[in-house]
Order: sequence, then C-alpha cells, then structure tokens
Amino acid sequence: MFQINDNYQKLPGSYLFSTIGKKVNAYQQANPDKNIIRLGIGDVTQPIAPAIIEAMHKAVDEMGHAETFHGYAPDLGYEFLRKAIVENDYKARGCEVEADEVFVSDGAKSDSANIQEIFAQNNRIAVCDPVYPVYVDSNVMAGRTGTYDKNTETWSDVIYMPCTAENNFVPEFPKETPDMIYLCLPNNPTGTTLTKDQLQEWVDYANRVGAVIIYDAAYEAYISEDNVAHSIYECKGARNCAIELRSFSKNAGFTGVRLGFTVVPKDLKCGDVSLNAMWARRHGTKFNGAPYIVQRAGEAVYSEAGKAQLKEQVAYYMKNAKTIKDGLKDAGYTVFGGVNAPYIWLKTPDQMTSWEFFDYLLEKANVVGTPGSGFGPSGEGYFRLTAFGNYENTVQALERIKAL
Amino acid sequence: MFQINDNYQKLPGSYLFSTIGKKVNAYQQANPDKNIIRLGIGDVTQPIAPAIIEAMHKAVDEMGHAETFHGYAPDLGYEFLRKAIVENDYKARGCEVEADEVFVSDGAKSDSANIQEIFAQNNRIAVCDPVYPVYVDSNVMAGRTGTYDKNTETWSDVIYMPCTAENNFVPEFPKETPDMIYLCLPNNPTGTTLTKDQLQEWVDYANRVGAVIIYDAAYEAYISEDNVAHSIYECKGARNCAIELRSFSKNAGFTGVRLGFTVVPKDLKCGDVSLNAMWARRHGTKFNGAPYIVQRAGEAVYSEAGKAQLKEQVAYYMKNAKTIKDGLKDAGYTVFGGVNAPYIWLKTPDQMTSWEFFDYLLEKANVVGTPGSGFGPSGEGYFRLTAFGNYENTVQALERIKAL
Repeated sequence: MFQINDNYQKLPGSYLFSTIGKKVNAYQQANPDKNIIRLGIGDVTQPIAPAIIEAMHKAVDEMGHAETFHGYAPDLGYEFLRKAIVENDYKARGCEVEADEVFVSDGAKSDSANIQEIFAQNNRIAVCDPVYPVYVDSNVMAGRTGTYDKNTETWSDVIYMPCTAENNFVPEFPKETPDMIYLCLPNNPTGTTLTKDQLQEWVDYANRVGAVIIYDAAYEAYISEDNVAHSIYECKGARNCAIELRSFSKNAGFTGVRLGFTVVPKDLKCGDVSLNAMWARRHGTKFNGAPYIVQRAGEAVYSEAGKAQLKEQVAYYMKNAKTIKDGLKDAGYTVFGGVNAPYIWLKTPDQMTSWEFFDYLLEKANVVGTPGSGFGPSGEGYFRLTAFGNYENTVQALERIKAL
Repeated sequence: MFQINDNYQKLPGSYLFSTIGKKVNAYQQANPDKNIIRLGIGDVTQPIAPAIIEAMHKAVDEMGHAETFHGYAPDLGYEFLRKAIVENDYKARGCEVEADEVFVSDGAKSDSANIQEIFAQNNRIAVCDPVYPVYVDSNVMAGRTGTYDKNTETWSDVIYMPCTAENNFVPEFPKETPDMIYLCLPNNPTGTTLTKDQLQEWVDYANRVGAVIIYDAAYEAYISEDNVAHSIYECKGARNCAIELRSFSKNAGFTGVRLGFTVVPKDLKCGDVSLNAMWARRHGTKFNGAPYIVQRAGEAVYSEAGKAQLKEQVAYYMKNAKTIKDGLKDAGYTVFGGVNAPYIWLKTPDQMTSWEFFDYLLEKANVVGTPGSGFGPSGEGYFRLTAFGNYENTVQALERIKAL
C-alpha cells in the first residue's frame, strides 16, 4: 500500500491569503454597497509596458512559422536573456556573475520553494520573523523543520530571527548556527532593508560558519538609497556562500507572465561538489524551461525602451508608497518601510492585534491589508499595506484611514 | 556547515540527449559538408496553429491594458481552461473528472518529476524498462531508489518491468509489490501501447495491491485505434488509484510554449488523506501558475478552429510515422510502434548494440536517432526514431536508410 509524504500533514491549516479572501468576501456579501479597496496581496495592477508587449507579439508571430518556431528551450534559459541579465543586473553593478551561473525559471516563488531540494534534509534553516511563508512551508514539506507548536506558531527545528522595531528590523546572528539562511532584502513583508555594510556582515558570518545564504532580491528595483546593495554579489565573498533569487514580477509586472531566475555561482561548493552543477541537474530533470515568448518578454525588460518604461512604473508604485507612508504618519501611525520597497509596515494602534486591526480597517474604512502576524509571531501587532494598487484607490484608501 | 542532498551524487554522469548532442556536433565539425537529419529528440517542428497564435496575440494585448491586465493566476489554473479540459478531454469520453481535480502546470515534464514529492520516501516505485528517464531520476533525487549498479544500469530499490518484443511490449505484473507504478501510454520510447482491456487489468491490479498509478498520457492525441483508452479514467476504478499527467507539447506543439496539467481525483486517498488536497498544497506552495497568455493558448486548443488545425498537425506527424515505419519495413527492419504514437522503435540489425547502430546511422546515412539502451537496459538492441521531423526530411532520411 502506497504511503504519503506525511510532512504535509504537519502544515497548519489555512493559508494567509485564502483566509483574508474569505473574510473580505463575507464582508462584501453582507455589505454589497461598500467599495472595498484592496492593498493586501502583493499583486501588481499596472499593465505590461509597451516595449514588452511589442516583444511578446513578435515572439508569438515567430512561433507561428516553421522557420522561426521555437521548441524546447535550452535548460538554463536562452542565451539572449541570460546575457542581458548578466550585463544589466550584474556587470553594470560591478558584480562578477557569468551567463552559465544564471538559471532562468518560471518565477522566484518556484525557485525559492525548490532550491532547498539540493540540500541535505538535516540542514538547519534560519529565517527572519516575520517571513514570506514559502521558505518555511517548502522546508516543512521536505521534512526539515521538526514539529509545529500551535501556541507559539513556530517549528522546533527552525531558527527564527525576529525583525521588529526594537532591532530596527535588522536580524541578529542567531545563537544556534544555521546551515541555510533565508534573507529577503528589501524585505517582504516589512518593506525595510539592510545597508550594504550590514549585508556584508551577513556574508562574512555565513562564510565563517559555513552556511549558505538564500538571498531573495525580488524587490531590488525599488531600492532608492545609495548605501543599499541591489545584489548580494556586491558583497565580498558572496560567491562562496550565496544563491540569489530574482523575479520579474515586481520590477516589470510579470506576476501573470511568470519569469524569474536564480544565480548559483560556480564558487559555491560543498567539499568538491559544485552547487551550480547540482542546480543544473535539478533544473534539467524537474523543469523544462520558461516559454520562449516569456523569455523574449524578459529580454525586452532590458531594452532601452523597456528600462525607461519600467522606471516610470516603479516610480508610480513608489508614489503610492509615499502616499501611504505620509498619510499614515499624518494620521498618527508609526510606520516603517516604503523607501526601498513597495511595502509599508505599520504598528497597529491601541495594542490591537494584527487581525483585530484587519477587521477594524475592513469594517470602518473598507480597506484590505495583511495582518503582520500572518507572516510569523514577531509580526504580531504589525500590519502590511502594499503600494501595488492604483494611485486613485491608494489616495482614497488613505483618506478613509485618516478620517477614522 | 551546510550539507548537500547527496542523492544527487548517485545519479550516473551524463544525460542521454547531451551525449547524443556531443556526438552529433563532433561528427558535423569533422564533416561540415554533410546534411544531418535529426530524428532523435522528441521535439516538434511544425509551427503553432493559427487559432492558437490568434488567441495569444489577443491575450498579449489584454496584458497591455490596466482594465484587462491579469496578475497572479488562480492556483489550480484559470477556470476557462480547466472547464475546456474537463469538457473535451474527459466528459466527451464519458470520464468523470471535475474542474477542481485538474491542476494546470507549466508542462508534463515538471509534473512527472514533481508528483513523487507527495509520496513517502520509502514507497517502492515500478517503471517500465525502457522508460522516460525523468521518472527514475526524480525519484533518485528524492532518495527513493537505493543504490546504482553500473553493470546492470539499474537501481536496487526500483522494480523494472521489461517491455520488449518478447512480451509484445506489455509489462507484466511484477513479482515484488510496488507502491507507485509509472505507466506512459502510448509509450515513450517504444511507440507501443496497451488496449483498454489490458489497461483495465493494471487498474484492477493497482486497486488490489494498494498502489497508485502515475499515468503519463502525453501522447494520447496520436491514438488511432478504437480499443485504446485516451484516459486512464475510461477504466473502472481508476479514480481510486490513478493520477493522470497530460501535456500540450505533442498534440499542439507547445514544447516551447509550456503547458500541461495533472488530474488528481478526489477519490484517490491514503486513509483519510486526499491526494487532491496534497497536490493543491504542493501546487500552491511550490508553483505560481502558468502564464495567462499560455493558458489562453491552451483554451484555443479546444476551440473548433484549434481542434481542426491540430487534427491536421497530428495527421502530418502520423504521415511521417507511416513513412518511417513502411520505409524501415521495406529495408528489412523489424519495427514497432508508430500506429498510436509518434515514435518508431526498431530492432537493430546484425546484433548491433543501440550505440553501435547510432554511430552507423550517423556516419553512413547522416541520420540521428536515439539509442534504445539510453532508456534502460531492456532498450538495448533497439533504436527510436521520431515522427516529429518535417515530411521532406523524413522522406529523405528513409531513402538514405533504404540505400544502406
């Protein structure tokens, strides 16, 4: 009789965003006249930029003719895209990354969930708290997290690094030594980040203790301050300890187009074994390439026209971020993030729990956000608003909040 | 110090198609004047059908405007696609499959590699021999296959079911009881298949011993005989024991477009645990949906125009299959497959090994095929040619082979 992977049974029941969805739907059904503004989930709202649309039309046409048809893509991704990535995201910033260290994928969510597969099951993972749920859940499924404590909402074998206002959202080196450290910078959900010097300390720490850093840089396009690294490979020694995950979802609005990539440097080794070769094997066996049309769309992100259009798109969202941040401050809230990231993290007022504030905001202002506690116990008492709405809605949402 | 998943170190060195690629490149470089015809890898050559191209252009346009832009897709896939799948692939054939049992993905290769993740590590897998390498390799990576014997080219914990001319390519129930049975029908690489009655016996067997069947139906569009099932759910009891994988790569030429789906019936359970719910959780955590544009392309596969155009495309490839099969017969070869599948499986002449015949065909006829032994030890002495080339090349290749 076949048996199942019983690690799945350990996963706590419902997923944050489905709980939110259910609550919002119930409220809307009970109050059909209310105009709810959603600043919850991190999905974008602006359309794909014209230069990218043009590239996709061209690629679609190519697929319609035998002479220009494209079948199976190269395992790592097309060279035209990997070269554009290397030139623009790395060489232009002085980072040493080669095209055969770039693995094109269907998105950073898949990569961030899959990357743990090439590591041993008894590795100890460390995550920031609060944290993007996929890092932990994918490790739960792999049996790497021990047992779940419902009261503390933590796993026995996961090292949590609290990031709160008390430590300025800068994680401290944990007491127990981790093997794999997940860092998402600029951070989802807090919208805060580290300076390059602070990141360098983490790279040095990882090299010192023999840990690998899984570095999720999905929000790097939103960095506005000079002393913040866009890539971990701006730090010395990162090629020996870090894997970097990148997304096209937030810089180019590809949440529904699906494209990302992962950099695994050839210098990253466990003994003699190259993690680059392992990921290549994983990629070649359990994945079959991102669509040709989508890879051409990715290439257009790096064209002159694409870059100019996306700069405007990022500026549009960052104007929303400023609107939210300034509006909340005016209303007396304590707020974080929103300078190098499209997320604003606020302290709930009057000692409300995150979910109490969720209900309050939904019912009194008809605005949907995300309860901080949904991202981990240290998120309790915090709340996330995203800058990915449209500007008019964002302004209106803040007017409602200010009027409370 | 972090450790790696050392199952990866057990994988034998080089991948079949990269070895072939290297040999072909070396030959071409040494003989730049030779016109090599490739009937090796299972990639298609015909362009995407007009109805699908039109649907993709329309979807690209939608992505370019805020009112019709699509961000994150629903976890299972868009309802428009899941409904089209259910109506056309299942209800039309009298199979009971509901839309919430269909999980849209980026392709059957990913699904066939990922599906093992929801099963326990100590499950025993059974595969046909020869076999599509991904089934075994993904289980190697998960630590489910024991140790590799270089001499026999087999894994200690894998149950092999030889499929050769001796048993008419019909696998026999294995002596040891498996927990997970991989069946690819119509078969890659042999191009043969089972009758519906023979498949029913496998379903009954699986239900009797408590095994799950992972049923890869990527080639169902090529079935031409009435007594062959297009879906395993045509068999009684399959909803209790079978997961079905489907691809758009071969019926619609999506090898570079990337789309597939997996059916996990709600009746498939391990004790109280629904595998449908487990796969939903896996899909929601480690994947983020197929591109909107690609899902619209998939929908167009089921439009009236799409169906008519793809019927022609399949007929085009099957004409190639007939050309290959008849040509080989004329030349005195013993051939199998090619009736319900786009693959022809031939017995190598003069007791040649599969690789000897590969070299012979490359050097004497400048035709590339795939050595049967690359798919498993029972493939030794066989050789695969695919019908996915263009017609003119296929005719020419056969003329060369006949002239040998």
